[in-house]
Amino acid sequence: MHEHKHISSAQNPLIKKAVLLKDKARERKKTGLFLLEGLRELSIAIKAEYEITTIFYCADIFENSDGNSLLKDFPENKIISVSHEIYKKLAYRDTTEGILAIAKGKDHTLSTLAFNKPNPLILVAEAPEKPGNIGALLRTADAANLDAVFIANPKTDLYNPNIIRSSVGCVFSRTIKTGSTQEIISYLQQERFGIFCAALTASKEYTSINYTGPTAIVVGTEHDGLSKEWLSNSTQNIIIPMDGEIDSMNVSVSAAILIFEVKRQQKLGR
Amino acid sequence: MHEHKHISSAQNPLIKKAVLLKDKARERKKTGLFLLEGLRELSIAIKAEYEITTIFYCADIFENSDGNSLLKDFPENKIISVSHEIYKKLAYRDTTEGILAIAKGKDHTLSTLAFNKPNPLILVAEAPEKPGNIGALLRTADAANLDAVFIANPKTDLYNPNIIRSSVGCVFSRTIKTGSTQEIISYLQQERFGIFCAALTASKEYTSINYTGPTAIVVGTEHDGLSKEWLSNSTQNIIIPMDGEIDSMNVSVSAAILIFEVKRQQKLGR
Repeated sequence: MHEHKHISSAQNPLIKKAVLLKDKARERKKTGLFLLEGLRELSIAIKAEYEITTIFYCADIFENSDGNSLLKDFPENKIISVSHEIYKKLAYRDTTEGILAIAKGKDHTLSTLAFNKPNPLILVAEAPEKPGNIGALLRTADAANLDAVFIANPKTDLYNPNIIRSSVGCVFSRTIKTGSTQEIISYLQQERFGIFCAALTASKEYTSINYTGPTAIVVGTEHDGLSKEWLSNSTQNIIIPMDGEIDSMNVSVSAAILIFEVKRQQKLGR
Repeated sequence: MHEHKHISSAQNPLIKKAVLLKDKARERKKTGLFLLEGLRELSIAIKAEYEITTIFYCADIFENSDGNSLLKDFPENKIISVSHEIYKKLAYRDTTEGILAIAKGKDHTLSTLAFNKPNPLILVAEAPEKPGNIGALLRTADAANLDAVFIANPKTDLYNPNIIRSSVGCVFSRTIKTGSTQEIISYLQQERFGIFCAALTASKEYTSINYTGPTAIVVGTEHDGLSKEWLSNSTQNIIIPMDGEIDSMNVSVSAAILIFEVKRQQKLGR
């Protein structure tokens, strides 16, 4: 390891700022920056062209891992060595590899969206609350190679540490857009998307629909489902028939069932 | 509310026992009992014919909820009123309705299994670790009305409070069997189940298989996948094609995609 600046004081302004970025959505919003953690997450963020402004590493832990090549490619003056104590203050998990970074959030407004294929497939989640559910949705979105994920009326910012963690980095690898339900509906209508809203009250089974053309699968929260605005502006409301006693599926599970049915049909149609 | 016995001492033997049942898998195993929490969970357990040995309620909280009819049907000498402080010691969540119960676990051995239809559909999960994943698997199992869920080489007991909570009661509504991988494979082979193992290394896409006859969908852990024992004893190993960069789905999501494809096909074939 080279001669990097070393910080061991919790009073250091950069450390204080990093702690705020970890803990406070307000600070992330104000600065446009966020804190990320872990070698894998950092690699994915760099690959996805996130701008990294600072890397922190804790030599005690980091020496043992294979991330040195990642540091080599990075400007030395932006790499900070921190004491184990400071690392623990910044880290969200115990198991990460001794590396953290401050990164700049991307633009998640709809205005910057462009698709490079004729019939994109996207997932829309309205007001998802639990970071773990958002993470699972993004993992599915990655596995299905969705063209975008839209979050309507978001309740939390995308760079919440719990979302980064539970998405295992998919929050960086995916195109994610946020906006109000109204903005997103307008966008989808203008771009002639088929809007398919998952609803327990819908009469059409999801398997009975032909998903051709640009397709948006829309899911609400487990507790409240989708707002009327979505249900009344959909091309078709669809239901996953449930035959059990409790009739409750995790939202990321429902979304995955719908998305993979669309993909199954699209493969058949190729 | 009637004149129920009231306990306000944490030293009371019944309270001590209830705390142990909540906290210690060992105690649950030794006694065959477990602690459950919440009106909804208790109602589902009663409906599923679980034997309830004791009900605890905290009058401060419980008065406001609509569970009185449930108490009316229950022998008075098995109902215990507890102080708010004792309730907090026993409760796992803050949000439940002031009601807890000690219940007797069911027999989860394979020997007691019988299906009442010719072509059952079951899910097998090998060594699932996270209670939250097991809960999500059970929710999917309920929604799909699976005929049974098998847990091979279980790492945790079914009545872990986190499983009860995350399954939203589906741990009670479903037929669940546990056993070693070898026992379960023998059972499935003997009963002539088609054994379809999800594997990232499989060559057949899950949508290319015809799932007729008794069907077992088998999933492993997110980290390690399935053991060789499963993969070499399967009828067919199957893959959900992933096209993303991270290629990681939650195990409950993968299981749901497979199960609902089987159900889709079975509905078509009717």
